[in-house]
Amino acid sequence: MSNHRTSRRPALLAAAMLGGLLLAGTAAAQDVEKTVAYRQGIFKALSWHIGPIAGMAKGEVPFDTASLKHHADGMAALALLIHEGFPEGSGPVEGSRAREEIWSDPETFQARAANLAEQTAILAARAPFLTQETLGEALGAVGGACKACHDDFRAAN
Amino acid sequence: MSNHRTSRRPALLAAAMLGGLLLAGTAAAQDVEKTVAYRQGIFKALSWHIGPIAGMAKGEVPFDTASLKHHADGMAALALLIHEGFPEGSGPVEGSRAREEIWSDPETFQARAANLAEQTAILAARAPFLTQETLGEALGAVGGACKACHDDFRAAN
Repeated sequence: MSNHRTSRRPALLAAAMLGGLLLAGTAAAQDVEKTVAYRQGIFKALSWHIGPIAGMAKGEVPFDTASLKHHADGMAALALLIHEGFPEGSGPVEGSRAREEIWSDPETFQARAANLAEQTAILAARAPFLTQETLGEALGAVGGACKACHDDFRAAN
Repeated sequence: MSNHRTSRRPALLAAAMLGGLLLAGTAAAQDVEKTVAYRQGIFKALSWHIGPIAGMAKGEVPFDTASLKHHADGMAALALLIHEGFPEGSGPVEGSRAREEIWSDPETFQARAANLAEQTAILAARAPFLTQETLGEALGAVGGACKACHDDFRAAN
């Protein structure tokens, strides 16, 4: 809560700079601690939903179209919520693996986040038509979007 | 991870019992620790999105229709993801405020979760038409859905 007032100004600036990517007011009402909890919560939930999908792709979980569709929809909904979790002034901070490049190169970062949103939307769209044999390739595109962002914007630990 | 194998059987049973509420495979591939992190992540993200809306209702954040719609959409998307965060065997556990009534009376709990999903969907539907004056009443219905579940299914601390 102590960061609430100090984070307000840079957050508003970031919102203005990024234009359509961040809606005015989105960051202003949040403090850094809550914002870190927000984005980590989204990533944990994303990880939770990809688990059974990866399990199906590996043959460790029985392939089930309804379950695949459900978890792919969950991922797509969550991926749409990432972009606003990194307003100016919300990192780098202790307890977060978010690297400074997120804020020094926000356009590239936001493009990576948008790519994940697009790839998860594609997976959700394809889910009803996938089989255990084709799932691996389809999921690979999502995994590639995850990795592309982690490689450049997430600290190793 | 240690709970993975022991939680698999009751989770499958719960999935069978709840029928359409839990998809087969949803709980089976998850362990308790990850499931707690999942549901807590969803609630943290919900809290993050309701913040600016409550701020607007109180007049502490400038009223902005686009921002209101954005955050209401976020809440509605997240609320849909709650129901699967409480499979049989995933509580009560240390570090979680989820009460045993969730698992002893899953039908009531799932109805409360469904009510939050409905009320947030209604808020998202109404968002484009709301004003600072009418937002309080509209948000009150969502707050009531939160409270109804917290009162009966969340420990005080």
